[in-house]
Amino acid sequence: MANPTACLLIIGNEVLSGRTQDANLKFLATRLGELGIPLREVRVIPDVRQTIIDTVNEVRARFDHVFTTGGIGPTHDDITAECIAAAFGVPWEPQPEAWALLATHYAGREPPAEFNPARQRMATMPRGATLIDNPVSVAPGFTIGNVHVMAGVPRIMQAMFDGLAPRLAGGVPVQSRAVHALGMMEGQLAQGLAAIQARFPDTDIGSYPFYRPEGNGVALVAKGIDPALLDQAAAEMAALIGSLGFIPVEGEPG
Amino acid sequence: MANPTACLLIIGNEVLSGRTQDANLKFLATRLGELGIPLREVRVIPDVRQTIIDTVNEVRARFDHVFTTGGIGPTHDDITAECIAAAFGVPWEPQPEAWALLATHYAGREPPAEFNPARQRMATMPRGATLIDNPVSVAPGFTIGNVHVMAGVPRIMQAMFDGLAPRLAGGVPVQSRAVHALGMMEGQLAQGLAAIQARFPDTDIGSYPFYRPEGNGVALVAKGIDPALLDQAAAEMAALIGSLGFIPVEGEPG
Repeated sequence: MANPTACLLIIGNEVLSGRTQDANLKFLATRLGELGIPLREVRVIPDVRQTIIDTVNEVRARFDHVFTTGGIGPTHDDITAECIAAAFGVPWEPQPEAWALLATHYAGREPPAEFNPARQRMATMPRGATLIDNPVSVAPGFTIGNVHVMAGVPRIMQAMFDGLAPRLAGGVPVQSRAVHALGMMEGQLAQGLAAIQARFPDTDIGSYPFYRPEGNGVALVAKGIDPALLDQAAAEMAALIGSLGFIPVEGEPG
Repeated sequence: MANPTACLLIIGNEVLSGRTQDANLKFLATRLGELGIPLREVRVIPDVRQTIIDTVNEVRARFDHVFTTGGIGPTHDDITAECIAAAFGVPWEPQPEAWALLATHYAGREPPAEFNPARQRMATMPRGATLIDNPVSVAPGFTIGNVHVMAGVPRIMQAMFDGLAPRLAGGVPVQSRAVHALGMMEGQLAQGLAAIQARFPDTDIGSYPFYRPEGNGVALVAKGIDPALLDQAAAEMAALIGSLGFIPVEGEPG
């Protein structure tokens, strides 16, 4: 059976304007690969209501899982939750569990803080949402259908994902084997590498030049779900490198 | 007149698998904002022929400019150019200028290198493409219609964009003003900030919590194309921070 697929929506003007360097894509891509839910597409979209609604509805129909980051705080530009409700055609309303969590949290501060309307927004969710725990800053994410809504701050998102991961029905982990060589150029190996790709159609073989102080070169990477096939592909990639007169080194360049 | 809009397609399995941290989005977002061609959407898509064709055709109809990064090297997984040709419904064929450039380049190497079929792929482009100069590693990018096709390696992409930028019909530069305060929390300022956003509908006002060794706090950022409006919005944001008992500091946290 094929692995389930994932799409990531990064929601936020701050990424599109260049203010903020996204740090969530690489983390989620890696973790989802390990869970056998490979990431197939990422979209970065602005805090614009209709764009969020349309995009969520498009991708939740096309992928098994949709993960969103960003837009679930208390300020006016945090509109992800209400847009997800609109996308699912359900009310956006107080979520009792989240409401109790946050009311207790603000009352327990030293000095106590007001659980004001802005903070109440963080406990307002699409009807039917189940919570994703936030061990860092309390305000939870949520899952509705196949859409998992998480914070944009990397430390909080990562903690949320750690709690969510065991609830995801995963597939066969995606593994990789890398071989690299200094001094080698892509134009030399392309023909041989295409032949290896043709012999391993279920393995995804990529070629990545690198430019480092210790020297330039190329890394060859095989990805897939069958470790025996990956080992064979890696052996062929190493043999190709050797046949071109370079020294194959296991793994990515350091 | 409204500013022209931009979409970025990051093409490459290596970004979706988590192998490679994208470094092109932030650079292009910043530079495009300065040119008055704000980035409105980014998609990261795999090296899959039909996905590239469909995505290019969708976004080139929706945005004024489309920029792509990745997939223009000599190896089998570099399929961007042929997919762009298919998207435009034109032949993928040798581009005489690029062919001459690369033939000369490889012949002039010490020792001379073969201008082999893999390297010839880098001089094969959609009919009607005009070149984007590559001062780093010779093999050019290209523009066809409103689609600008660049390398994925950040150093090369940036050099290509520097050459391309003067040819883009830009708009009014997007500027920003930031004010931040240590100790402040979003839940305290949300109501006041929403009121400022309502008074400045043409300015995009965002709130970004930060977590730093020197202390936590919130940065407020106003973005737009009218410097006078931005100054007024920034003054109101500073006044809001002061009214809440915190010290407003100009700019982003250091």
